[in-house]
Amino acid sequence: MTTPWRQRFAQRTQRMTSSAIRELLKLTSLPDIISFAGGLPAPELFPVEEAREAADRLLRERGAQALQYSTTEGYPPLREMIVRHMARYGIKVEIDNILITTGSQEALDLIGKVLINPGDRILTETPSYLGAIQAFTMYGAEYETVPIDDDGLLTRELEQALRTGPKFIYVLPNFQNPAGVTLSLPRRREVVRLADRYGIPIVEDDPYGQLRFDGQHIKPIVVLDAELHNEHQNGHQYRGNVIYLSTFSKTLAPGLRLGWVTAPHEVILRMVQAKQGTDLHSSTFDQMLAYEIAKGGFIDRHVQRIREVYGRRRDVMLRALERAFPDPAMGVHWTRPHGGLFLWVTLPPSIDTSELLHEAVREKVAFVPGVCFHPDGSGHNTMRLNFSNAGEAMIEEGIARLGRAVVRRLEGQAAAVPVGARS
Amino acid sequence: MTTPWRQRFAQRTQRMTSSAIRELLKLTSLPDIISFAGGLPAPELFPVEEAREAADRLLRERGAQALQYSTTEGYPPLREMIVRHMARYGIKVEIDNILITTGSQEALDLIGKVLINPGDRILTETPSYLGAIQAFTMYGAEYETVPIDDDGLLTRELEQALRTGPKFIYVLPNFQNPAGVTLSLPRRREVVRLADRYGIPIVEDDPYGQLRFDGQHIKPIVVLDAELHNEHQNGHQYRGNVIYLSTFSKTLAPGLRLGWVTAPHEVILRMVQAKQGTDLHSSTFDQMLAYEIAKGGFIDRHVQRIREVYGRRRDVMLRALERAFPDPAMGVHWTRPHGGLFLWVTLPPSIDTSELLHEAVREKVAFVPGVCFHPDGSGHNTMRLNFSNAGEAMIEEGIARLGRAVVRRLEGQAAAVPVGARS
Repeated sequence: MTTPWRQRFAQRTQRMTSSAIRELLKLTSLPDIISFAGGLPAPELFPVEEAREAADRLLRERGAQALQYSTTEGYPPLREMIVRHMARYGIKVEIDNILITTGSQEALDLIGKVLINPGDRILTETPSYLGAIQAFTMYGAEYETVPIDDDGLLTRELEQALRTGPKFIYVLPNFQNPAGVTLSLPRRREVVRLADRYGIPIVEDDPYGQLRFDGQHIKPIVVLDAELHNEHQNGHQYRGNVIYLSTFSKTLAPGLRLGWVTAPHEVILRMVQAKQGTDLHSSTFDQMLAYEIAKGGFIDRHVQRIREVYGRRRDVMLRALERAFPDPAMGVHWTRPHGGLFLWVTLPPSIDTSELLHEAVREKVAFVPGVCFHPDGSGHNTMRLNFSNAGEAMIEEGIARLGRAVVRRLEGQAAAVPVGARS
Repeated sequence: MTTPWRQRFAQRTQRMTSSAIRELLKLTSLPDIISFAGGLPAPELFPVEEAREAADRLLRERGAQALQYSTTEGYPPLREMIVRHMARYGIKVEIDNILITTGSQEALDLIGKVLINPGDRILTETPSYLGAIQAFTMYGAEYETVPIDDDGLLTRELEQALRTGPKFIYVLPNFQNPAGVTLSLPRRREVVRLADRYGIPIVEDDPYGQLRFDGQHIKPIVVLDAELHNEHQNGHQYRGNVIYLSTFSKTLAPGLRLGWVTAPHEVILRMVQAKQGTDLHSSTFDQMLAYEIAKGGFIDRHVQRIREVYGRRRDVMLRALERAFPDPAMGVHWTRPHGGLFLWVTLPPSIDTSELLHEAVREKVAFVPGVCFHPDGSGHNTMRLNFSNAGEAMIEEGIARLGRAVVRRLEGQAAAVPVGARS
């Protein structure tokens, strides 16, 4: 049976972004594949025992509360804890500036819901986070893109992009997903200055800020924005130009689906209204559980361990790339992230990584083709590699396999060049 | 600082439905108020001990899995359990027909996201569920309403409403929120027949179906639809015209935020895409926990107990209304639900229940004014009363308080009539 509503329905949803993340997450579960495709944290670092003790205590002491409906804004002690956390990062906010979301993904969705009208242009880095593009595209967003280099978004191209009147700037300043690059301090100041001049809000997405392996912490954009407006000094609530997002997915556990928004109170109020219609509130139990695990300073100790392990895995991946991948003289290079979960490889323009993926999967290794992260459809010769999920030996083996696929493809192309064309 | 984006932002969000549910939920937490306003289950019935044992077992045995990212569709064993549950209700579906959502609220949001374009008309009962109206309105829905009586939606008015070309029919057939009425079997058949004739899909929202205190179970609309298309007999996947929603919020615990959608596979696929952008997936931990609690048939035993307690509370509220409220001859009447959480009071047209609420709160009792549930703005003289949350003695006391407020208002109005106008 095909009724007319089915046809309309299909038309509507065909406009949505393809389900690349999900399909690729499925690949990672094949038994003998070494996957650098997902963005999965290392499960062996999850605080399972701490969660077990916290769940036990919580259900003994406040079980009925933990299983009941709760307010849309989120569990107040968890929000207060985030206020204290933000203060250490240099940003003075109050509980009314904090909204708990069902993962950072929901924050991106709520931003789309309250800010984007069909046809609005969103200014993003290219490449940028696929989940954000998916969320915004659902609300009819189009994109104005600015390229990145090893210091993040190229601010010399920002002003021209701002003149097109985007609804907001979406930027990942720390160990960006997908490229692993970090926005430098001078460029952060420039983003804040230009956004203020053009009256364009900034969405600062910072899931990885706590996962720095080396180098110096750089002030978040939201702090620089507060400084610009001299607001952090006079005890007022944050009233600036930035909507800041972060998450417990990388520091505690992604399965709990807990993120948060820090923003001016009027923005939080609108997002609360939108969240009421979206899922009423995030899991009471998970919020109370996260608080119960984290309240004694656990996360600070725990991220030390995560940084050590991920930092070593990054090093192993970088060394393996040097061994297994073609020489930079061949047009092959990659980023050297100071934190986070991902690095980014650029191959010669003759290689399409979407095609390379099929070959890689035959070699039992997976990655995400870079084109997925480009709102403008470019990046065909790039790929994202995750170094947080696989162990060190698996990283070495996986990169060796991937290197074989890349080398074979480059050699195949060389062989395919007609003899007369060779020099 | 007020920047242009702030102004646009305010304009956009002012169009959203007011946050009536949330503001009223806040009232319920005032210490000496007896609240019939919320839709809260009785917390003393929550399976706290079962949850504690299940969480302990889960984190000991599969902790890393429970804390990791998982697939958007939901935890397969939980979806399989729902398939078996649906089969007992007479509807043959497969795991591909089931999507786990972050509460039923998210299912309503996803339906809005994939089906509603701004200006689309949605056909609802009036009154109807406020959370659905909030979710749909976010996507620019407008409403075509059909009134209800004690047998639910008045199907004799349905065909005319269908001729206006609504995007879908949204209906709560069992112990409707807010009115507590149940759609009769002949009317369910009529809804299915007319929807099929006009090619309009039906969203069947059934959060309370398992909470029947008395009378006979009536086949869900999705079953009647499958029967119409003779599809339940030949072993095929469900391919009908109905998107069916239910939840674990009323049978297990609302704090876990777990609901589900049963629909044709092509519809599930589109909703999965939309959910990816919304929250990636529902809490892995809560899904595995719900399955761990429920897998041995716990919910069946547990709902017996919920039915007993809620059924007695309904009886206490009905008897208290008879004692404390004015005579039906005064134009005061109420519904007598066979299940669920709510009943519905209609007062004389001279009483505005939004005004009455202020007086009631002074008497330390709360309810939801009926106007909140009417997409067409009618129902000013109606109110919704919840009977699941307060204990029996509190129900008696609360209804006595509310009765005093109603009587005083009626008498005040009589006294306010000029002497010459009295007969």
